[in-house]
Amino acid sequence: MTLKPTSRQPGRHFLQIPGPTNVPDRILRAIDYPTIDHRGESFAELGRACLDGLKPIFQVEEGQVFIYPASGTGAWEAALVNTLSPGDRVLLFETGQFAVLWRKLAERFGLKVDFVPGDWRHGIDPNVVEKKLKADSEAKVKAVLVVHNETSAGITSRLAEIRQAIDAAGHPALLMADMVSSLASIECKTEAWGVDVAIAGSQKGLMLPPGLGFNAVSGKALEASKSARLPRSFWAWDEMLNSNRNGYFPYTPATNLLYGLREALAMLEEEGLTNVFRRHARHAEATRSAVRAWGLEIVASDEREYSNSLTGVLMPAGFDEAQLRRTILSRFNLALGAGLGKFAGRVFRIGHLGDFNDLMLCATLSGVEMGLKLGGVPYQRGGVAAAMEVLSRSGATSPDAKLPGAAEKGTVRQEPLEIETVLSHPNRSSRSPSR
Amino acid sequence: MTLKPTSRQPGRHFLQIPGPTNVPDRILRAIDYPTIDHRGESFAELGRACLDGLKPIFQVEEGQVFIYPASGTGAWEAALVNTLSPGDRVLLFETGQFAVLWRKLAERFGLKVDFVPGDWRHGIDPNVVEKKLKADSEAKVKAVLVVHNETSAGITSRLAEIRQAIDAAGHPALLMADMVSSLASIECKTEAWGVDVAIAGSQKGLMLPPGLGFNAVSGKALEASKSARLPRSFWAWDEMLNSNRNGYFPYTPATNLLYGLREALAMLEEEGLTNVFRRHARHAEATRSAVRAWGLEIVASDEREYSNSLTGVLMPAGFDEAQLRRTILSRFNLALGAGLGKFAGRVFRIGHLGDFNDLMLCATLSGVEMGLKLGGVPYQRGGVAAAMEVLSRSGATSPDAKLPGAAEKGTVRQEPLEIETVLSHPNRSSRSPSR
Amino acid sequence: MTLKPTSRQPGRHFLQIPGPTNVPDRILRAIDYPTIDHRGESFAELGRACLDGLKPIFQVEEGQVFIYPASGTGAWEAALVNTLSPGDRVLLFETGQFAVLWRKLAERFGLKVDFVPGDWRHGIDPNVVEKKLKADSEAKVKAVLVVHNETSAGITSRLAEIRQAIDAAGHPALLMADMVSSLASIECKTEAWGVDVAIAGSQKGLMLPPGLGFNAVSGKALEASKSARLPRSFWAWDEMLNSNRNGYFPYTPATNLLYGLREALAMLEEEGLTNVFRRHARHAEATRSAVRAWGLEIVASDEREYSNSLTGVLMPAGFDEAQLRRTILSRFNLALGAGLGKFAGRVFRIGHLGDFNDLMLCATLSGVEMGLKLGGVPYQRGGVAAAMEVLSRSGATSPDAKLPGAAEKGTVRQEPLEIETVLSHPNRSSRSPSR
Amino acid sequence: MTLKPTSRQPGRHFLQIPGPTNVPDRILRAIDYPTIDHRGESFAELGRACLDGLKPIFQVEEGQVFIYPASGTGAWEAALVNTLSPGDRVLLFETGQFAVLWRKLAERFGLKVDFVPGDWRHGIDPNVVEKKLKADSEAKVKAVLVVHNETSAGITSRLAEIRQAIDAAGHPALLMADMVSSLASIECKTEAWGVDVAIAGSQKGLMLPPGLGFNAVSGKALEASKSARLPRSFWAWDEMLNSNRNGYFPYTPATNLLYGLREALAMLEEEGLTNVFRRHARHAEATRSAVRAWGLEIVASDEREYSNSLTGVLMPAGFDEAQLRRTILSRFNLALGAGLGKFAGRVFRIGHLGDFNDLMLCATLSGVEMGLKLGGVPYQRGGVAAAMEVLSRSGATSPDAKLPGAAEKGTVRQEPLEIETVLSHPNRSSRSPSR
Repeated sequence: MTLKPTSRQPGRHFLQIPGPTNVPDRILRAIDYPTIDHRGESFAELGRACLDGLKPIFQVEEGQVFIYPASGTGAWEAALVNTLSPGDRVLLFETGQFAVLWRKLAERFGLKVDFVPGDWRHGIDPNVVEKKLKADSEAKVKAVLVVHNETSAGITSRLAEIRQAIDAAGHPALLMADMVSSLASIECKTEAWGVDVAIAGSQKGLMLPPGLGFNAVSGKALEASKSARLPRSFWAWDEMLNSNRNGYFPYTPATNLLYGLREALAMLEEEGLTNVFRRHARHAEATRSAVRAWGLEIVASDEREYSNSLTGVLMPAGFDEAQLRRTILSRFNLALGAGLGKFAGRVFRIGHLGDFNDLMLCATLSGVEMGLKLGGVPYQRGGVAAAMEVLSRSGATSPDAKLPGAAEKGTVRQEPLEIETVLSHPNRSSRSPSR
Repeated sequence: MTLKPTSRQPGRHFLQIPGPTNVPDRILRAIDYPTIDHRGESFAELGRACLDGLKPIFQVEEGQVFIYPASGTGAWEAALVNTLSPGDRVLLFETGQFAVLWRKLAERFGLKVDFVPGDWRHGIDPNVVEKKLKADSEAKVKAVLVVHNETSAGITSRLAEIRQAIDAAGHPALLMADMVSSLASIECKTEAWGVDVAIAGSQKGLMLPPGLGFNAVSGKALEASKSARLPRSFWAWDEMLNSNRNGYFPYTPATNLLYGLREALAMLEEEGLTNVFRRHARHAEATRSAVRAWGLEIVASDEREYSNSLTGVLMPAGFDEAQLRRTILSRFNLALGAGLGKFAGRVFRIGHLGDFNDLMLCATLSGVEMGLKLGGVPYQRGGVAAAMEVLSRSGATSPDAKLPGAAEKGTVRQEPLEIETVLSHPNRSSRSPSR
Repeated sequence: MTLKPTSRQPGRHFLQIPGPTNVPDRILRAIDYPTIDHRGESFAELGRACLDGLKPIFQVEEGQVFIYPASGTGAWEAALVNTLSPGDRVLLFETGQFAVLWRKLAERFGLKVDFVPGDWRHGIDPNVVEKKLKADSEAKVKAVLVVHNETSAGITSRLAEIRQAIDAAGHPALLMADMVSSLASIECKTEAWGVDVAIAGSQKGLMLPPGLGFNAVSGKALEASKSARLPRSFWAWDEMLNSNRNGYFPYTPATNLLYGLREALAMLEEEGLTNVFRRHARHAEATRSAVRAWGLEIVASDEREYSNSLTGVLMPAGFDEAQLRRTILSRFNLALGAGLGKFAGRVFRIGHLGDFNDLMLCATLSGVEMGLKLGGVPYQRGGVAAAMEVLSRSGATSPDAKLPGAAEKGTVRQEPLEIETVLSHPNRSSRSPSR
Repeated sequence: MTLKPTSRQPGRHFLQIPGPTNVPDRILRAIDYPTIDHRGESFAELGRACLDGLKPIFQVEEGQVFIYPASGTGAWEAALVNTLSPGDRVLLFETGQFAVLWRKLAERFGLKVDFVPGDWRHGIDPNVVEKKLKADSEAKVKAVLVVHNETSAGITSRLAEIRQAIDAAGHPALLMADMVSSLASIECKTEAWGVDVAIAGSQKGLMLPPGLGFNAVSGKALEASKSARLPRSFWAWDEMLNSNRNGYFPYTPATNLLYGLREALAMLEEEGLTNVFRRHARHAEATRSAVRAWGLEIVASDEREYSNSLTGVLMPAGFDEAQLRRTILSRFNLALGAGLGKFAGRVFRIGHLGDFNDLMLCATLSGVEMGLKLGGVPYQRGGVAAAMEVLSRSGATSPDAKLPGAAEKGTVRQEPLEIETVLSHPNRSSRSPSR
């Protein structure tokens, strides 16, 4: 009889941080194939499949997608060093910790950052964008930097409206959007919204392990890169573009992660991107129902800015999120997202993006609900029950069902529904903001 | 934009049939290694590790364990053909569908089966065993066949008491126990309980894919095999014993599944078998709490016979379990156990054995609860909430905590607690039934 | 600096025993997927794909294929117990150790074996078959048992001619053929050759780990099974047939190995069975060239009976094959087949079947050549060079090239060429022996 | 019968380019585990294991190792941007294409490169280093950049002597060494040789897929980084150092590749680094014997500079290496290294580094030998035979055997033997060049 104390946690680990997300078996198996010659013809097929397959994910047709054998943070850097010159001015908004980090990065490269302060509970105000740019009559601002989905807070800025604001100001600045935690989870109409450089990573909606970073780049940004004077080599678009034409890369690519990417693209196509967005919207709504039932506060203050990939939750005053997460991890094998930056200790984050389904969400919310009890955090029961109400609505079964919400009072974000409608009528895409 | 209807179910599949169970990643990766020469020294190490490592799982020291490259059903057959002769009489009890099937198997081999009828809602009555054997004054009954945990019903017969009954009758019959769905989930003291042939398979508590069958055999059974006249070759213990001595097998073994078995044994040792049993007991209790909260009926009528590896649930009259399971599978990616034999259409089964944890159970019960709603089955809400109550009891955190229950009125099975007590005091193992 | 002596063998292991064979990565990854419910619809698709997909491999259309969750040895047993009755007489030929073992198995079931002695260096003589059956005017012989490819010797009996011999004798006996080491490596026209029960396993030409056994069964054999009186349950065709109709199995199948089987069938289809046979023929020829260059003797005495899946090699007198294999294994990480039965110490076997290519063969032969040197075995250099001559013949590149040989004097087996021709002209299949 | 032409190449692919190398199964399986939270305690254990475990591989004790979630090319960039300022002068030697590429990189960052021309057939001349630095009396040269093992040519520069040359000149420049294709294959005494920044990647001697880049950094280089003014963020050592202290990283690391790295480090420890070097030396010697037997010319002109990780081979005039490699790849499933830069069309490269063994080398050389024949390239037979001679020398069996060579005339590189001797007497490590 084995009597020694337990040293393993049985069953599945639940990785409900807002990325890296749960990597599906198909992708894990795909990366578990022997590496091949990155200069051979078999590789070129792989390279092309990945480069071409990412375009519909970013919703670009004219634009160019770049894949770096590097994490998403590198793709942030790539966006700046390819397009800007030392001393250039950029406009950036404090949506949360990732905006803070991007600012720091920009300043390390000698850029002048006009950092619009924020309370981490609101997204970017398009009116402020318009005002700021109108005030910049000499067009000194070279780029507007937007964290599309602020992962530290669970807030999705309204990128389409930001685009409209830039257009309204008639300002020539490049628009760069960090889509790290929105791509393949939340609608990202890169081209239609006139995003000049979209930045993403592998470990979120794309369901891959970390290790790949992406830029989706407009012709305008490519043009800008020709005169940009920040030094660059690893991140340089020019040589990459040359090699990519035939499916190759200018230096050794992360071949095994590309195997995974090809599989991820196939999986997204099988599910259908519209269904992917709808699924994330449903899970986000169910999560918010649970949070409200517990009597806890959602970080995002404006329902138009609720994130569909994660939900930030404020701890009641006097209670530490780190302690709660530790309890939940050790007791229930569930990892939740930490409070970052000034939210440390005060906010925990529930990731509900990537390869995820209703019962994984129920499991996650059960872990939180039991953790709140065990941690002595003041809360009301019924969070899981509330989420089950949302998840078991009869109309939501079929993949092409409308999202519920119209009849509900105030609690549901309207905007995605409209986007869905647009999506299912491609010929109406002219409604998308033009540039 | 990809618009075709969804063709994949995102996220984890929940395999909550009572076996095969969810195979953990460590085991899947283990079986994914290249096959080796089954006659080489590396293989012998593997073979010995498996043969030796199974002994503490069966809780045998003197006995011999046999591993067949065959599913558990084969191990059933092996038990009979190695020990019995054509026309031999065996005593078997109708605990459910698996008892029915074992009977059929025995009869195909020309054995005379004294089949004690049952209602599929009760385990074997030790008093009946004693009475039956006392009546057999000429000892014509050669073997008592017991389905320890009846997988079709979720009923665990009290094997220790059955052993006592045989002893009380002073009867020499062999005791054979089907531990397919109890081994490594529910206490199985094979040697202490005087089980002569224990039968098991890989795909339940051992957390492996199906494809291995086991016999754990007492000296008395080995002795019986010398004069047994049922023909056998593949299942024959004699040649197996010879080869096993050096870690080999008389014919090609299922090498890759043995890789998995070695890993499974390591995992069980890491967790500790007592903790494994305690975990299953906790999950079973939480499941029953949910079933009661829903207002549904548990198949097992006698709380002393509740199974810790699965729970059989009766559908309300007029509702079809197959329809319910289909809804739950298509909508929530959760597979539940079908009603078997005469339970078809009437009983669904929730498997909670193997590599399983609290949140997987919450997910499972959420799927059932939402499925009941969607299927229009009459039920009360609150099943998941009731389970969470059990799972979040503060005392149950640490692996060596006592199971709750003593203070509870009637709803909790007392017997496992006593077993736990015995387990944690090895020197008191003399309390185990002696032969 | 790590200075401890090496404890790992770097690089690839070469598993050149005549089975289990090298399992390709695609198959290993396939079996590494989570097990699913064997009663669900997804499983039925898998089951049907496997059952249907095996038919072209066995080259049967009318016949029925059975898949056991058991090793190939079990499939041997299944063939006998389903078709015969205690005391039945069978005709079996001593081609080598596997014939000896099959005899033993038959006798354990009370069959009377007419065992025609052999020297292990020749296949079955069709004339003897004809003579034996003609002499059996009362048709007491119920089955002719043939080891198609004798794995202990590397000898392929001429099954088509054996069929003709049975027909010439006008004898009604069933023809059973052990195709364990020929299926998917050497032409096996099960139906055209009138084989009533073909026996195979997963771990040879099918490139899978061990753990699946197969029977391909003619209508005549199925008919015989209705009156056969050997007891059976696990191996019984009747219930299997019922379940198989819908893609299911009467008891838990070895699901993960079936994942692998589905992948193996796809791979064989991609390569094309004709190409698979041609590849094996080429590698066998190259191997024999090497053996001759070394001045060693091939076990098979009759070139018409050379095996394409393995080559048995006689050690010079006074030299021990076990010692040689140990040297080669420890020094070169290459496992060769042992001498079995009366060949122990005298014969080593080079497996060249399954997922194999030219350079793997060169590696294998290099290991043997260097081992002969290191082991002090008398030999001539030049074996690898001779094999390279065969492998680099310019005509053999394209998959539909003719096998070389016609011009060569005596060293090349003619018969496969003719089979190839037949294969590539399906409309000429009427040339196959009719029954 | 499947008759379509073959569309798969059976058997193992041989990836004998000089990196990425063949990834062993243990590492592939390791990276196939679910990604975990990079901010949790389990991750910190992984991070520490990787950071600590790399130190003995680089043979540093005081130095700091950095791991980037990026390919090795990024690590090149990291070395420069962390230590240098715009306009700084560096000394770099044209050993081959990778020196050319590194120069280009440096110039993109505004560094002034003193590029000493070379013929791609010789390593760096330590005398030139000394002369160059002595002439730089004002110490304007800030760094000496050395490609330790020039992968485009198969030439290993004598780093220890280069160090001595710098010391002899009394010059304060940093010494940076690209060890991408030497680390864990060829002796790299980073600290003893006074290398200030060593650069490496995952996909060569470390046996991993591409996707990780490394810097091993001396205190002197860390100090230099404090005043270096090239802009940097992703590559910045300062924040990395902070996070690494506790096993974490400042941004999302490539977790799954780190799983692989941990496994790789364990494997290298099991084999023992000295044995790893000896193995590579043996395989390189056997390869050169084959090349000489074929009558072809080795790129490296100076036997003291022969590379142990790859061998560059010159094509006879008028024959194209690309055509030869295509033939070999399509016919034998063997990928060889292309001629790079000015060697395109003229040089093919045989990689014999990473997870490799004697029979894989025999396979590789067999593929080349047969390819030469099929390609009509003028050559002599006997290359494989010559290699087998080297590989089957009786003394070379045991891991601590001396390398053969002393008795041979001229063809064997002496220097590694001396290094081996030093290695096996750690107390004599004072003989290593001191700084």
